[in-house]
Amino acid sequence: MTQNIYDDPEFFAGYSRLPRSLHGLAGAPEWPALRALLPRPSGLRIVDLGCGFGWFCRWARAEGAAQVLGIDISERMLERAGAEPKDEAIVYERADLNRLELPEGGFDLAYSSLALHYVEDLERLFATVRRSLVPGARFVFSIEHPIYMAPRRPGWIADRRGGKSWPVDSYQMEGARRSDWIGAGVVKYHRTLGTTLNRLIRQGFVIRHVEEFGPSDEQVAQQAELAEERERPMFLLVAADRAGP
Amino acid sequence: MTQNIYDDPEFFAGYSRLPRSLHGLAGAPEWPALRALLPRPSGLRIVDLGCGFGWFCRWARAEGAAQVLGIDISERMLERAGAEPKDEAIVYERADLNRLELPEGGFDLAYSSLALHYVEDLERLFATVRRSLVPGARFVFSIEHPIYMAPRRPGWIADRRGGKSWPVDSYQMEGARRSDWIGAGVVKYHRTLGTTLNRLIRQGFVIRHVEEFGPSDEQVAQQAELAEERERPMFLLVAADRAGP
Repeated sequence: MTQNIYDDPEFFAGYSRLPRSLHGLAGAPEWPALRALLPRPSGLRIVDLGCGFGWFCRWARAEGAAQVLGIDISERMLERAGAEPKDEAIVYERADLNRLELPEGGFDLAYSSLALHYVEDLERLFATVRRSLVPGARFVFSIEHPIYMAPRRPGWIADRRGGKSWPVDSYQMEGARRSDWIGAGVVKYHRTLGTTLNRLIRQGFVIRHVEEFGPSDEQVAQQAELAEERERPMFLLVAADRAGP
Repeated sequence: MTQNIYDDPEFFAGYSRLPRSLHGLAGAPEWPALRALLPRPSGLRIVDLGCGFGWFCRWARAEGAAQVLGIDISERMLERAGAEPKDEAIVYERADLNRLELPEGGFDLAYSSLALHYVEDLERLFATVRRSLVPGARFVFSIEHPIYMAPRRPGWIADRRGGKSWPVDSYQMEGARRSDWIGAGVVKYHRTLGTTLNRLIRQGFVIRHVEEFGPSDEQVAQQAELAEERERPMFLLVAADRAGP
């Protein structure tokens, strides 16, 4: 049974106060980098895996997407997403990404922001996404970076030079990690970067871009607390295309 | 001017005592994983970038390679390689990988073991390798992993559980790193994993496999000191194919 922490009232309240919950895409520092990997949404049929409050779904529609399917396991998040002004071309569906079924060749773009690290059987999901895309279609996703996820007890330490370091351990030990994000025992699945890419390749994707997100100088100037994100990558961004038929 | 630390007498003496120098491929724990990424050498024209003592060149010939070109910047290493029993199908050439020129379409396989982190302009080298390969040919290389290379002062620390951690900092700050490997100020070039892969892709390669080397249970059973390599990856292994013409 997949953990559905987002429907826990306290977790949900905490999550709702994050900048990316309050301000949407503009509150996510990695969004400009992720956006750069996307094709123009105009006319596309798009699926968003782990759509949360639906910020991306609404953005894609505003950019001319023909149709957007937002998938999430959290009832509360979908409720909030559905409370936005009605748009017939956005459909929200409650589903567990570990058991997801999608229509074959039903989409021109698959997108996922910070959801795939909750998925235990990533290879099954990649196979499902591949079948759901038309040949040549793009799959863009972000995920917590394995450097960020690997340690059994993640956290910064002061280094010898008065700077910060991020101690890495257990990198090769893939599997569940329980973290105390927003005060709750959130279960995520650590995989090496190689494993994530090789599963994509094996399931018929061609890797187009791999980005280990770090903030730009401009972002650090505007938001000093982002500086630590340069010491170790927090997010992994990947763009891959479905190979030919 | 590229640093040629291998021709420093003290460094050379120290390097010559490493297991991989004394025992060749069998002394390199990552060799079985690297070998698994190679096509059968039989009948192939092969270039080895940073061939050192020529262990791989001789292995490839023993496996039936038609012709092997071994490139290295170190005169001492090539001398040692050339002192082995003569094989007309192996040619050693002294060259700086930062300025390397190779014949167009001259090779069916390019290989490099732990040399590319000495190369400042990796994109130029990738372009050179691409042109030197026939369409569809494979490029297999190992390189020090960016997690290993990023820290300004690399080293293990004891963690809170009596285990070991590898503190990462400066991951996003690409460029030169001076390390004290074998007692010398060795200059290497840190790049994020994403940068290395994206440069390959941009220069016309299709990524086939990305492996962040960790020892097998069997290897740890035989050589207990390898256990720490599971805490963070030391080597990155990549297989890519030259895209069509």
